Amino acid sequence: MTQARVVLVRVRNPLNIGAAARAMANFGLSDLVAVEPYGPSWRAARSAVGAQDLLRNARLSTLPKAVADCHLVLGTSSASRRELQQPLIPLPGLTEFLKERLPSGGRLAVLFGSEKIGLRNEDFQYCHALLNIPTQERTPSMNLGQAVAVAAYELARAGLGKAVRDPGYAAPEGAQIEGLVSGSMEALRRVGYWRHMPDSVRAEKLRRAFLRWKLTKGDASLVGAYLKRANSR
Amino acid sequence: MTQARVVLVRVRNPLNIGAAARAMANFGLSDLVAVEPYGPSWRAARSAVGAQDLLRNARLSTLPKAVADCHLVLGTSSASRRELQQPLIPLPGLTEFLKERLPSGGRLAVLFGSEKIGLRNEDFQYCHALLNIPTQERTPSMNLGQAVAVAAYELARAGLGKAVRDPGYAAPEGAQIEGLVSGSMEALRRVGYWRHMPDSVRAEKLRRAFLRWKLTKGDASLVGAYLKRANSR
Repeated sequence: MTQARVVLVRVRNPLNIGAAARAMANFGLSDLVAVEPYGPSWRAARSAVGAQDLLRNARLSTLPKAVADCHLVLGTSSASRRELQQPLIPLPGLTEFLKERLPSGGRLAVLFGSEKIGLRNEDFQYCHALLNIPTQERTPSMNLGQAVAVAAYELARAGLGKAVRDPGYAAPEGAQIEGLVSGSMEALRRVGYWRHMPDSVRAEKLRRAFLRWKLTKGDASLVGAYLKRANSR
Repeated sequence: MTQARVVLVRVRNPLNIGAAARAMANFGLSDLVAVEPYGPSWRAARSAVGAQDLLRNARLSTLPKAVADCHLVLGTSSASRRELQQPLIPLPGLTEFLKERLPSGGRLAVLFGSEKIGLRNEDFQYCHALLNIPTQERTPSMNLGQAVAVAAYELARAGLGKAVRDPGYAAPEGAQIEGLVSGSMEALRRVGYWRHMPDSVRAEKLRRAFLRWKLTKGDASLVGAYLKRANSR
């Protein structure tokens, strides 16, 4: 995945700083820089019980220095307040954008602004483009820790597995299914259910259902054993 | 997009409840249910200054009732602690999974467990599958509010409302499944099958199987009618 630096600019709440650090760690980011944080918050966040190494290793810097060694800088923006002077990347399009714009091995920085007003115009001058987390018009403003979490998730997303893991799924064989069909035919006959339906139609309905249900081998054994017991009485 | 119900199970921290509600609002979700929250936290979260309508409209319920009208139930899981009995969906694969499994217009519930231990085994029996947010092995545990944010973002991400699936597939609701469970309990009792198994274990086994089988509404009606007939003799 892309290694990205998270730069928190003028953040005030120590809980948000801690939350940002935790989300970064969850998704494999480790490089945190703070620009002009509210002093007591910064000290509180770093000394908090359980603060990760990530937070202890975080650096204080100025914005120009924080991005001095980066090849691509994105400033998060609600994109609602001002005329945009830069490309606006919706977060779900980030991977595609990075493929095009971030050189292999290049360093990326993502900037997050203060809880109240976000990044200022003067901050955006250091950004190649703006990154926008698409939210509802009525409730556009995200909690900072959650915004960092969602951005870190998207950064990691392209490299995260997508395949559904289905543990222990062993499909029954055709013969086992046929055993269920005939056992069910007998059970239906015994209780007089579906009695006016031709045998062939009944069998087809049962077979289609058993195949559609994605029974495991164990399921098929269980239903088969039950039918055998029920039909023997 | 897919409308999803968020179900918080045994959550203790009012800040987390508020954060979950905020993230839901950011990404257009509005249906929040709490199961056995820590009482004072629940009251504090709902009466907090600035609490959204969403939180004020949130309901208290039991888990079976919370999912009774849902067609697909996913339980979030770190997937690390126990042998899995259900398919495990990595969050980036959610859209694909929903295309296949959630009928158009169907109701989805996503369950989140307590801050300390997550969902319990007894909760998972109501789930068709598990949803896993892939995190780093060294720092797997996510903050609850951030987990809800990332899941809500992923739900909104693909504009899932467009996803059309097999139009003939109408999934049964939770209440219909519960009817099959109780009918099957009776049928098993009548033929003396699984007789040495405690009721709760038998019910759980049946529930897990019915959810795994991807029954249609028609399948469920059929099996239900058959059980009724068989049990009335």
